[in-house]
Amino acid sequence: MKVSEVLHMNGGIGDSSYASNSLIQRKVIFMTKEIAEEAVSDVYCSMFPKTLCIADLGCSSGPNTLLVVTQTVKTVNKIRKKLCRQSSPEFQIYLNDLPGNDFNSIFRSLPRVQEELKEEIGSEFGPCFFNGVPGSFYSRLCPTSTLHFVHSSYSLMWLSQVPKGVEMNKENIYLASTSPPSVINAYYEQFQKDFSMFLKCRSEELVSGGRMVLTILGRKSEDPTSKECCYIWDLLAMALKQMVSEGLIEEEKLHSFCIPQYTPSPLELKAEVEKERSFSINRLEASEINWAACSNKLYSSDDSFKDDGYNVAKCMRSVAEPLLVHHFGESIMDKLFHKYGEILSDCMSKEETKFVNLAISMTKRE
Amino acid sequence: MKVSEVLHMNGGIGDSSYASNSLIQRKVIFMTKEIAEEAVSDVYCSMFPKTLCIADLGCSSGPNTLLVVTQTVKTVNKIRKKLCRQSSPEFQIYLNDLPGNDFNSIFRSLPRVQEELKEEIGSEFGPCFFNGVPGSFYSRLCPTSTLHFVHSSYSLMWLSQVPKGVEMNKENIYLASTSPPSVINAYYEQFQKDFSMFLKCRSEELVSGGRMVLTILGRKSEDPTSKECCYIWDLLAMALKQMVSEGLIEEEKLHSFCIPQYTPSPLELKAEVEKERSFSINRLEASEINWAACSNKLYSSDDSFKDDGYNVAKCMRSVAEPLLVHHFGESIMDKLFHKYGEILSDCMSKEETKFVNLAISMTKRE
Repeated sequence: MKVSEVLHMNGGIGDSSYASNSLIQRKVIFMTKEIAEEAVSDVYCSMFPKTLCIADLGCSSGPNTLLVVTQTVKTVNKIRKKLCRQSSPEFQIYLNDLPGNDFNSIFRSLPRVQEELKEEIGSEFGPCFFNGVPGSFYSRLCPTSTLHFVHSSYSLMWLSQVPKGVEMNKENIYLASTSPPSVINAYYEQFQKDFSMFLKCRSEELVSGGRMVLTILGRKSEDPTSKECCYIWDLLAMALKQMVSEGLIEEEKLHSFCIPQYTPSPLELKAEVEKERSFSINRLEASEINWAACSNKLYSSDDSFKDDGYNVAKCMRSVAEPLLVHHFGESIMDKLFHKYGEILSDCMSKEETKFVNLAISMTKRE
Repeated sequence: MKVSEVLHMNGGIGDSSYASNSLIQRKVIFMTKEIAEEAVSDVYCSMFPKTLCIADLGCSSGPNTLLVVTQTVKTVNKIRKKLCRQSSPEFQIYLNDLPGNDFNSIFRSLPRVQEELKEEIGSEFGPCFFNGVPGSFYSRLCPTSTLHFVHSSYSLMWLSQVPKGVEMNKENIYLASTSPPSVINAYYEQFQKDFSMFLKCRSEELVSGGRMVLTILGRKSEDPTSKECCYIWDLLAMALKQMVSEGLIEEEKLHSFCIPQYTPSPLELKAEVEKERSFSINRLEASEINWAACSNKLYSSDDSFKDDGYNVAKCMRSVAEPLLVHHFGESIMDKLFHKYGEILSDCMSKEETKFVNLAISMTKRE
C-alpha cells in the first residue's frame, strides 16, 4: 500500500465524513491556539514582511480546514492595530494535504470565508490569497526560503508508509503490549526517518527565523506500547478479531494489516529536532483530551457512554476508513464500525480514556 | 446570475465532460505554442530567477490543464542546457480557475505528471511545486510582484457578468445582427471594464519585465455582431427557439438569457492594453481554426458533417452547460444539444465555419 495514495480523511459532508466528525480535532486546535498565536506574533513582529506566507500542512477538508489560518490572519491584524501600523501585509496561504483530499469542498467554501474575514476585520484587511498544495509533507511542497509560519495539527502521527515486518505483529493492527521488539523498532525507525525528512523539507522552505507549530497525537510515557496511545487501535483490532471468528474476515488478511501511525513521546520528538539541527525548540507541551470529546453533546442519561462510544467510532471511521477499505473491502465497514462502537461504549463506561496531544513550537535557526 | 458561481467547464471525465471535449482548445494551445515559448525564454534569460513563478489562468480540468505549464518547464530546461547553466530554477506553478472548477481531478493526476516530467528531463530537473488557486481572474490572485510568466488560453472571452439590459436582446442569446445598439454597447463596456481590471490585477502581480501571453476567442472584423464570432451562438439560439415553439421553454425565459462572453477584435484588445498602460505589446496575432477541429477523426464519408456537427455540439455543451442548466434547468439539456447538433451539421455541410483566435504577448513595463 502506498500510504500517500490511500490515506485521506473521508470526503464530502455525509454522516461518515471527516467534515461531520472532526470535533475532537477542532477542540485540540483551540487548546493549542495560544501557542500558534504566540509564534505568528513573534514572526510578524520580527520581520514585518510585505507578504506573510503561511502553510497549514494536512489541512483536510471540513470546518477545521480554515480555522487556523483565519485565526492567524486575525491575530496578525490585532497586533498590527496595536502597533499602529498603517498597512496590512498581504497573506499568501498554502493549504496542503495529500492529492486524495477533497480540495473542491475547501475551494467552494472560500468565497464565503473571505467575505466573513473582510466583514470582521474591515477595509484595512490585507488581501488574502488561498492556494491548495497537493502532496506529501514528507517531501518539498514550496520554494526555498519562502514560508514565515508553518502549522500542522493532528497529521504528523501518520507515517509515510507501513513499517516493514508487520506480519510479525500478528493480530495487532498497531503497536500493542504483545508486539515483538522487531515490530516496535520498525515503527520507531519509520517515525525517525519520516519526521527528520519533514524537518529537513520545512527547514528548506522556511525563512531564517521562521516559525513552526505542530500538534501531534502522542503519548506521555516512554513506552511506545503504552495504553494511552495504543488502546484506541487495540479496540478496533478486537472488533476485527470478532469478525475473523465470525468468518467475515480471513485471519491472514488481519495479520497483514497495520495502521501507518506513530504516536511519539515528548523526548522522542525533542531528540529528532536536536538531531536534525535546523530548529530550536521554544515550547514542547503535552495535554490530554477525553475520547468523549468526540461527542458534541453533554449527556446526563445512563446512555451517555453508549452514544459516546458510537461517536468515537464515527470519528475514527472518518479518519481510518479509506485505509481499512483499501485492505478489507467496502462491504464490511458498517458492521465493523458498529462492533467498534459497542466495544468503545463498553470500555468508556468502565474507565477514563484519553488521547495525549503534543504541541511543539520551533524557530528556524539562522 | 453570478457568473463566478455558475460558470465552469463540465467536470469529471464522462461523455459531456470538458476533459473529453476540449480538443479544439488543445489545438489552439499548439497553434500558439511558439509565442508562449518565446515569452518564457525571454523572461528566463533576462532574469535567471532562483524560483520561476508561472500562472495559468482559467486552467480548467482535463488533458489541456497541465499542457502549457509542462511545455513551459521543458522550454526553460532546454534553454538552461543550451546556456550550460548548471542549476535549474525551482518552478512555482499556479493553476487558477473559478472555485467551481474540478481541482480534485487535476490534483489526483499530478503525481503521474511529475513522474513523467522527471523521467523526460532527468535528474537535473528543478523541483516543480504545483498550487491550485481558486478565484476569478478579474480579481487579485497572487501577492504583489511575484509572477514571472502569466498564461491564459480560451478563458478571457468570458465576462465577469452578463451585461445589463439584455432583455432588449429578445431571442438572441449573444450579440447578433438584430441586437439593438444599446445591447452591443453594454457588451462592449462590460468587456472594457473586465479586461482593464484583468490587466490592472496582473500588472500588480507580475514583476517588472514579466511576460504575459493570452489567447482569446475573438474576431477579425470591427463589427461585434459579425458572423465569425456570433454564428455559433446564433445556432444555439435557433435550437432554443425551436424548443420555445414546441412549448418546452417559455419565451420569457429565453428573452432573459444571455451568454456572458465577448469576442474582441485585435484593435479593441490593443486599445485596452494601451489605455491601461502597464504593458507593452510584443505580438498580436489572429488565426483561424475550423469548427470541425472539435472532432478527433478525419472523415471521408458523406456523414462527416453530421458527425462534426454533433462533435461541435458536444464541445459547446462541455463549456456552456452549467450556464444553461442554471437558467433553463437540467431536463432539457439532452434534447437541446441534440437539436443544436442537427442544426450545426446542416450548416457545416453548406459553408465553411471558423473560430477566430487572438494571441497577444505582452511585457510588464518597468
